[in-house]
Amino acid sequence: MPRIVIVGGGFAGLNLAKGLGNVADVEVTLLDRTNHHLFQPLLYQVAMAGLSPADIAVPIRSLLSQYCNIRVLQGEVLSLNLDRNFAITDFGEVCFDYLILACGARHSYFGHDEWEEHAPGLKTLEQATEIRRRVLSAYEEAERINSADARKRLLTFVVVGGGPTGVELAGAIGEMSRFTLAKDFRNIDAASARVLLLEAGSRILPMFSEQQSARAARDLEQLGVQIWTGSVVTKIDGDGVEIGNERITSATVLWAAGVKASTLGQASGFEVDRQGRVIVETDLSVKGYPHVFVAGDQACFTHQTGKPLPGTAPAAMQQGQYLAQLIRQELAGHSRKPFHFVDKGQMATIGRSRAVVEVGRFKLSGFFAWIIWIVVHIYFLTGFKNRLLVVLQWAWSYLSFRRGARLIVNKEWRFHVAVPQTQLPTDVAQQ
Amino acid sequence: MPRIVIVGGGFAGLNLAKGLGNVADVEVTLLDRTNHHLFQPLLYQVAMAGLSPADIAVPIRSLLSQYCNIRVLQGEVLSLNLDRNFAITDFGEVCFDYLILACGARHSYFGHDEWEEHAPGLKTLEQATEIRRRVLSAYEEAERINSADARKRLLTFVVVGGGPTGVELAGAIGEMSRFTLAKDFRNIDAASARVLLLEAGSRILPMFSEQQSARAARDLEQLGVQIWTGSVVTKIDGDGVEIGNERITSATVLWAAGVKASTLGQASGFEVDRQGRVIVETDLSVKGYPHVFVAGDQACFTHQTGKPLPGTAPAAMQQGQYLAQLIRQELAGHSRKPFHFVDKGQMATIGRSRAVVEVGRFKLSGFFAWIIWIVVHIYFLTGFKNRLLVVLQWAWSYLSFRRGARLIVNKEWRFHVAVPQTQLPTDVAQQ
Repeated sequence: MPRIVIVGGGFAGLNLAKGLGNVADVEVTLLDRTNHHLFQPLLYQVAMAGLSPADIAVPIRSLLSQYCNIRVLQGEVLSLNLDRNFAITDFGEVCFDYLILACGARHSYFGHDEWEEHAPGLKTLEQATEIRRRVLSAYEEAERINSADARKRLLTFVVVGGGPTGVELAGAIGEMSRFTLAKDFRNIDAASARVLLLEAGSRILPMFSEQQSARAARDLEQLGVQIWTGSVVTKIDGDGVEIGNERITSATVLWAAGVKASTLGQASGFEVDRQGRVIVETDLSVKGYPHVFVAGDQACFTHQTGKPLPGTAPAAMQQGQYLAQLIRQELAGHSRKPFHFVDKGQMATIGRSRAVVEVGRFKLSGFFAWIIWIVVHIYFLTGFKNRLLVVLQWAWSYLSFRRGARLIVNKEWRFHVAVPQTQLPTDVAQQ
Repeated sequence: MPRIVIVGGGFAGLNLAKGLGNVADVEVTLLDRTNHHLFQPLLYQVAMAGLSPADIAVPIRSLLSQYCNIRVLQGEVLSLNLDRNFAITDFGEVCFDYLILACGARHSYFGHDEWEEHAPGLKTLEQATEIRRRVLSAYEEAERINSADARKRLLTFVVVGGGPTGVELAGAIGEMSRFTLAKDFRNIDAASARVLLLEAGSRILPMFSEQQSARAARDLEQLGVQIWTGSVVTKIDGDGVEIGNERITSATVLWAAGVKASTLGQASGFEVDRQGRVIVETDLSVKGYPHVFVAGDQACFTHQTGKPLPGTAPAAMQQGQYLAQLIRQELAGHSRKPFHFVDKGQMATIGRSRAVVEVGRFKLSGFFAWIIWIVVHIYFLTGFKNRLLVVLQWAWSYLSFRRGARLIVNKEWRFHVAVPQTQLPTDVAQQ
């Protein structure tokens, strides 16, 4: 019985597994480092306290429990043995006849990994929770501190990177300051918070048309976001960012600037591009290994347009579905057909009532674009329960201007852990 | 203008603050270490993946934002200066005319603080998330491991302490194994998990009548929980627990055995009982300090029955409301009346359709008791939104036997953190 091993339970891996569910005489193993499939397009909502982690994440195991021929194992693939066809994981070896790598991408700090500590990226639930903790804690600290300089530093938020994630984060912070938090504080004016969006290129959302990009910039500015284009960050530390000679003092810097594919492809000796993505053949297989495939953000597929496909959920889903069909047909004795990506357009949201949508030549912006954005995202949210709860959460948020999940959750859970002695503070908060 | 400082935003502190909201000529400051009020009676549902943290926790700031005379500051009180009437916090000094301590309780390991690492208690959201991570990870690890001994260790869950929290945790694990997880695994039979509830005394739920306690024990046993009474734990380590000479090998031990009041009372030189609770006068004030009060789990009030009041939400709420009235009346020139606790009964739930309820002589158990339990808990959940979402979540859970929040969230959010070299495993999971 052919053994198919899928590494990664994102959009590519999950759709591939579903396509092989209950197919006779096929044994599927899905490996993932986490226990959940994450609906990444809404992750910024968790970071911005609009949704809870469980609203956008579902155990992979329960999404696939109806398929008897699929087993799900939580674990990490450390390396591949391509001579004897097994993967070495942190819990043992797993043999395969077909292997599909769909491990996705992580943030890249362009060689400055030390920046991560000061400027978290947004790829995992843990990072989203950390960003939420930092943003909300900055307001809390500003409320209890007396120094005007310290307050200014705490109420300055910097988002690095003007792609969809950066735009969504900056818009959400601007909106949260202006509306949600405005009435909750006594000592500070939350609406006076400064939100900076830094983009190295000449405009934000470069994958959209110039017209749409300009419209998004105007919408962001209405939410109080200042956009600095042509701004290459040269340093990030605990006190802010530097752009050449200029320093922005800020307590909260968020990173949405660059991604890099999982290192497993390169480590296995596969040919990769500059972002570490594995260069794949027309059937998504790796050159020289017709039984090894790469899909989703980890793959560099250039056969259709000459340029790599975008690292988006639709591309990953289509690749997963394609590979399921390819394997089914190959096992039935048919030959392989090349992968063909159907571009269904792109969209990005700005705050709670604006978006930009582009489908081919069709362009839309403003409130109706936002309605399309919300319908598409709810439609694709995996699992009925999440969809219903998310709609209610959004409806509530929309009507009340509140955010449902404004929790600061600490990293340490123990009481009795040895804590470094707190220095007695000198700043006196008493009024 | 009299300055009233409340330390702690639990049931006592929050109800006190609300009672002083918009009262003319009173300035209220509420200090809390966290930014949220926690609905602790449902915390076990977060630990057991039935609810998300945001379902049972709301920012204190937003609960009190309508009251202009109340400011909320996130911070920790380190010590008190009772000669000059100010509290020293981690961000500076806060002066008061009235001070109310309502800092609650934490777990006590009876002098064995080193047990905490191996047996988390359930008092905070962080601990609930940690317990969830441990319980769900045990099933995941059991699924991918081949050794029968290791599996047995992973599928043995020990809950120490047979009070309401221990009963709720053990019942929920039993139910989760038997129903929710049963179909999701391929290599293990989740329903074969062993759940042990250890109680040092002669019966579980000792605060209930013998008849109710026996009924709860039968209900728990139907969910596969083994109850060991008269079992005093003498050691806990990473491999399980010891009861005298007997060792139970278990990967997951949970602590619900003892609590201890916040140390601030004792550190301030107040008279405390064995659990560290401050012994209060009939008006909840501290002897010798008529302007300093203690309420909730931190207080030991014995004037009514000769025994301390139970550390429950109703007792804390009533004390908070009483103190608000006392302060309002005292400022209006009236004299103090003693606190009088109205016992509204007690209840505990066992799994998703059983409970025990006792109100004076009225006793109820089984499904109808559970209906009462759920109605009371939803009624008291703070904030309309949470109530509605929790009802939907429960309805969904009930109808589908699923659990909505089965996420394993790691403690570390960074990718580029220095990780100790993983040892290459020798156990081979391939079948």
